[in-house]
Amino acid sequence: MKRIGMLTSGGDCQALNAAMRGVVKTLLNSRQKVEIYGFLDGYRGLIYNNYRMLSGSDFSGILTKGGTILGSSRTPFKTIKDPDANGLDKVEAMKQNYRKLKLDCLVILGGNGTHKTANLLREEGLNVVTLPKTIDNDLWGTDMTFGFQSAVNVATDAIDCIHTTAASHGRVFIVEVMGHKVGFLTLNAGMAGGADIILIPEIPYDINKVIKKIEEREKNGSRFTIIAVAEGAISKENAKLSKKEFKKMMEKYPYPSVSYEVAAQIQEKTGREVRVTVPGHTQRGGSPCPYDRVFASRLGAEAGKLILDGEYGFMVGYKNREIVKVPLEEVAGKLKMVDPDSTIVKEAKLLGICFGD
Amino acid sequence: MKRIGMLTSGGDCQALNAAMRGVVKTLLNSRQKVEIYGFLDGYRGLIYNNYRMLSGSDFSGILTKGGTILGSSRTPFKTIKDPDANGLDKVEAMKQNYRKLKLDCLVILGGNGTHKTANLLREEGLNVVTLPKTIDNDLWGTDMTFGFQSAVNVATDAIDCIHTTAASHGRVFIVEVMGHKVGFLTLNAGMAGGADIILIPEIPYDINKVIKKIEEREKNGSRFTIIAVAEGAISKENAKLSKKEFKKMMEKYPYPSVSYEVAAQIQEKTGREVRVTVPGHTQRGGSPCPYDRVFASRLGAEAGKLILDGEYGFMVGYKNREIVKVPLEEVAGKLKMVDPDSTIVKEAKLLGICFGD
Amino acid sequence: MKRIGMLTSGGDCQALNAAMRGVVKTLLNSRQKVEIYGFLDGYRGLIYNNYRMLSGSDFSGILTKGGTILGSSRTPFKTIKDPDANGLDKVEAMKQNYRKLKLDCLVILGGNGTHKTANLLREEGLNVVTLPKTIDNDLWGTDMTFGFQSAVNVATDAIDCIHTTAASHGRVFIVEVMGHKVGFLTLNAGMAGGADIILIPEIPYDINKVIKKIEEREKNGSRFTIIAVAEGAISKENAKLSKKEFKKMMEKYPYPSVSYEVAAQIQEKTGREVRVTVPGHTQRGGSPCPYDRVFASRLGAEAGKLILDGEYGFMVGYKNREIVKVPLEEVAGKLKMVDPDSTIVKEAKLLGICFGD
Amino acid sequence: MKRIGMLTSGGDCQALNAAMRGVVKTLLNSRQKVEIYGFLDGYRGLIYNNYRMLSGSDFSGILTKGGTILGSSRTPFKTIKDPDANGLDKVEAMKQNYRKLKLDCLVILGGNGTHKTANLLREEGLNVVTLPKTIDNDLWGTDMTFGFQSAVNVATDAIDCIHTTAASHGRVFIVEVMGHKVGFLTLNAGMAGGADIILIPEIPYDINKVIKKIEEREKNGSRFTIIAVAEGAISKENAKLSKKEFKKMMEKYPYPSVSYEVAAQIQEKTGREVRVTVPGHTQRGGSPCPYDRVFASRLGAEAGKLILDGEYGFMVGYKNREIVKVPLEEVAGKLKMVDPDSTIVKEAKLLGICFGD
Repeated sequence: MKRIGMLTSGGDCQALNAAMRGVVKTLLNSRQKVEIYGFLDGYRGLIYNNYRMLSGSDFSGILTKGGTILGSSRTPFKTIKDPDANGLDKVEAMKQNYRKLKLDCLVILGGNGTHKTANLLREEGLNVVTLPKTIDNDLWGTDMTFGFQSAVNVATDAIDCIHTTAASHGRVFIVEVMGHKVGFLTLNAGMAGGADIILIPEIPYDINKVIKKIEEREKNGSRFTIIAVAEGAISKENAKLSKKEFKKMMEKYPYPSVSYEVAAQIQEKTGREVRVTVPGHTQRGGSPCPYDRVFASRLGAEAGKLILDGEYGFMVGYKNREIVKVPLEEVAGKLKMVDPDSTIVKEAKLLGICFGD
Repeated sequence: MKRIGMLTSGGDCQALNAAMRGVVKTLLNSRQKVEIYGFLDGYRGLIYNNYRMLSGSDFSGILTKGGTILGSSRTPFKTIKDPDANGLDKVEAMKQNYRKLKLDCLVILGGNGTHKTANLLREEGLNVVTLPKTIDNDLWGTDMTFGFQSAVNVATDAIDCIHTTAASHGRVFIVEVMGHKVGFLTLNAGMAGGADIILIPEIPYDINKVIKKIEEREKNGSRFTIIAVAEGAISKENAKLSKKEFKKMMEKYPYPSVSYEVAAQIQEKTGREVRVTVPGHTQRGGSPCPYDRVFASRLGAEAGKLILDGEYGFMVGYKNREIVKVPLEEVAGKLKMVDPDSTIVKEAKLLGICFGD
Repeated sequence: MKRIGMLTSGGDCQALNAAMRGVVKTLLNSRQKVEIYGFLDGYRGLIYNNYRMLSGSDFSGILTKGGTILGSSRTPFKTIKDPDANGLDKVEAMKQNYRKLKLDCLVILGGNGTHKTANLLREEGLNVVTLPKTIDNDLWGTDMTFGFQSAVNVATDAIDCIHTTAASHGRVFIVEVMGHKVGFLTLNAGMAGGADIILIPEIPYDINKVIKKIEEREKNGSRFTIIAVAEGAISKENAKLSKKEFKKMMEKYPYPSVSYEVAAQIQEKTGREVRVTVPGHTQRGGSPCPYDRVFASRLGAEAGKLILDGEYGFMVGYKNREIVKVPLEEVAGKLKMVDPDSTIVKEAKLLGICFGD
Repeated sequence: MKRIGMLTSGGDCQALNAAMRGVVKTLLNSRQKVEIYGFLDGYRGLIYNNYRMLSGSDFSGILTKGGTILGSSRTPFKTIKDPDANGLDKVEAMKQNYRKLKLDCLVILGGNGTHKTANLLREEGLNVVTLPKTIDNDLWGTDMTFGFQSAVNVATDAIDCIHTTAASHGRVFIVEVMGHKVGFLTLNAGMAGGADIILIPEIPYDINKVIKKIEEREKNGSRFTIIAVAEGAISKENAKLSKKEFKKMMEKYPYPSVSYEVAAQIQEKTGREVRVTVPGHTQRGGSPCPYDRVFASRLGAEAGKLILDGEYGFMVGYKNREIVKVPLEEVAGKLKMVDPDSTIVKEAKLLGICFGD
């Protein structure tokens, strides 16, 4: 008999349900008796012992559903040591609840912040298996995270829609793509949508290079230019600032986000009409794409297998097209970023895409 | 032998190409010889005599394409009387080019502003047939405009995506929907997406009613609330302002758009986390939906027939499920709006949707 | 206090759930106390008293879901008088269960066959309100049925996909579209997908006219031809047969469906390679399109209102863009068909579409 | 100055245009002068010297378009040695045209059959670079082919649609998925669509195991079963036949395809109603998904680079997440298949999916 706790933490994404379904189907298809405790709204559920018992039927028909049936919340790492409602350190509260319920293991689905906390719980002696969930694909130790490809699809849809309107009006259009501090989402959606310019955090941009590209396109007869800008994109000048200087600059930052800064500069320096589109949270939502459904199901199945085998302390990841187990201590606190010298960036440049560098 | 000028004006939308294809296919399938002059970038092409000759092959394969193969631009009505590059009144310039090319007729695709100018040209003695293009569905004289249903689909997709993320995080989410000064797009996308609250210009809202609805939902166990806000939505107080007072208020308006005002008020008065999503120009783009393709093709075919029959001065519209011809002077300068007492609004209220009134 | 029975009968379609949600939300938002009895698998549930009690939460989140949460079945009209398991005439069984549960009303969602039975129950003294569900749009008394536009979308998607492959290979492609004995679905999907030839039951075809069109296209440089064939399409010769002769012919009919007959004849007479695609049941499935969600919700709300007002014996329909109530006796047993002289058919012909007549 | 011939051969698929655009953009962005000869309809264009000169503008806007702007055809390998119209051996004809046009290289996009011929041309001394195009993903030497993920999406859409209708009616539904003689497409679409049973050529099935699974599901309260059947699936008995016996059996095979055999057996042995859906050629069509657009663009860019570097005789493939060049002689004539012992199959089994083995 196995008693399994499960929670989803951090910003939601597509295929969370598919992944949980994979874990639970694998556990229920085994010969062992299994009890599933679903903690609600991320770590908060574990801290306040807020859960509901889940059976197989809870996971029926959720393969194609976006969101998470358990709810989620962001519990910032820095407050995790703050006392909870009962005056307990929150980590202590989680440990107590884990033990009170006599859990054999926690299955935790989340991104970077979530993995820091998961590793902390492991260090405190809890059995933990994690799954790499994020539309940003910025998790160390895995080539791919689920949610990423679905988010690429949503962002690409937006660029596709903008393409027809940009071509009709002969305008410069900026589409701001999510991705937190890394550029995988923008790079892929930009290439898929046929963006002419792609600005990502890993390659700081020079606005004059961006403008030069726009002017070149015009000289060659193109009526419009599409720019995919990562929400974390940064100019060369700003990239040179110290952390303190950057913080100070941001305090007086007059734009809602970097896309608007790029737009303002192009408008100012060239007189061109620039429009900004921000698909925003739609990139986290909707039904997972088939790629993510298969991928999340596979990861879930392997997580289920680890639990059945009593192997804890791992994130189930993906390396060189094989599912692998990665020690949690290797994952926590690291960020995977786009390598500016990677082949995909080089190929994008061969295609004529400008990165502003 | 017929010599036909054609142009698309104003903000672009889906099915412009489908409509033009309908006109041209009908003309080319007739026994008459036809020459098509495609003016580029809206009225601007007619003013500066910038056109290209179009043949049947230009219209092959464009049924499913968004945007307009002729390009578009907004030529504000108020500047139409300003002199053009040759020192001519712009209307005069259009008349001269029309006559120089010995055109039999102009086919003009556009929305409200476009129809004002089209009617002006008719009054000046030009032969004009128009087609009702706008995602706003605010054109007088027709039950429906093409582009509308496709834009409903894009906006509904956004609400669908937001739905899963809102449900996961237990948040209030606002989706800002286009529609200029009318609420058809927001009303339909809101109902299709299952929005709990819908704010449209025709029904000024009381923010306290909005908040009351959010709190009621919470009391009944709902973790989240979705609000569809028209870009033209207006509060009861602001609706009472005189034109002058309104303009003054807008000069100091601290929000990017009304959605952000609604969000700020909810956040301030209830402490709830509110997120705003603005799908923006994506609502104009992408492939037209099957409804719009059929509808625009039908309108185009009837426009072609009018031309073959030598009947000018009409917009081809849609009334009670039949294609009709509407005299241009009846269309120009009028706005079709959502009737707050219409059955669809009553039905929305039966379903429990709150309009903030 | 109202006690409402509800059932969905016949082939399923999109927006059944949306329609039921509309009814139930309206009832629950009223001041009256309401009990909802959901009969399972169509009339069968009523015959065998197989139901489950439904509450508001059963209808939460189902606006966008295809299928029907109540299940459905086809109970052919001719067996409805056969005795049920308890030796009772089936109609008698339904009456007894209706009375045993002290129902105030039955809400029945279905198409043509379903409406025959619903009217029978009305004649037997039961209170009935119905909703027009069918992808075929062949119900008398309403301009539109829900499911139709969603099915048009699925069928059009199939034609769109086939278009690119047909263009690449220079082939004749047939897409067989559902619609039972009427052509609305094929006509609309065919026009939306840019089919060159459309064959529908209401306009019997001459295969030589079809071939002539293919050859004309080739002469004009078109590499391929797309034919949308209704599953109920019929040749001129077969249309002349008496019912008896037709039945005899069908007994030896060597083709899986009429599309394959058309394909064989084209191949035989011209040597061209013809491919047939049958999207089949996919046309009934998937998430309802925004049009259908709004439309079904509106119909559902009005049905709810009829029940609250105690007005029974009606189908809630749609006429000239208004929701109307249609006496059931006017609906039952009649078929709405495409009028070969309607404007939409004429417009399709203006566009150059061949109907084989 | 480089003179490049290009052709697409075999069944078309998504992202062919994206891949060609990648090659051409890379060549045109180089400093070298380049001439592109586009041979029409596959090898046939090279055999009969039927080509058109292509410029950059031919590749503008085609990233998102399905099909191939060059057209395609299947030229079976066995007839490639047959004399062409001028009495020449076809291979000889291709060599002569290659030399007459003074080509530096041929870019050939295709699947298994295409690669056999491409390698033959290489052996005859022509410079060849190839790109791995097929929805089947059965090409040796590359982990992935473009078209595959898009086809998975189309097939999964079909299963999703069928899911709602199957659930409503409580039926067994078979969806027949393409893939020629391998099961990648069916395995992925089946897992993504939540199929309960997946039958692929690499794992011959026992119909009794299939039926047992259906009955088990029913016992556990499931109203329906979805079976994804590869078009090349085969029963254990038939898999044991010699090639000659198999051919003989197929001569009298009474079913349109293997799905109908499976359906007939289930119906016969259990009395259940079984429906078959065959999405067919739609799986090759429509706009390529973002994954395929990025992937094909990357492959195209690397092919362009090989040409610029004068490296010939390779297929550009994908191994362990890196783009690689694979000698053509290693690719030709080999088939990549699903390994029944691969982790993905094991994971599918953990999830409870039955393969009938």
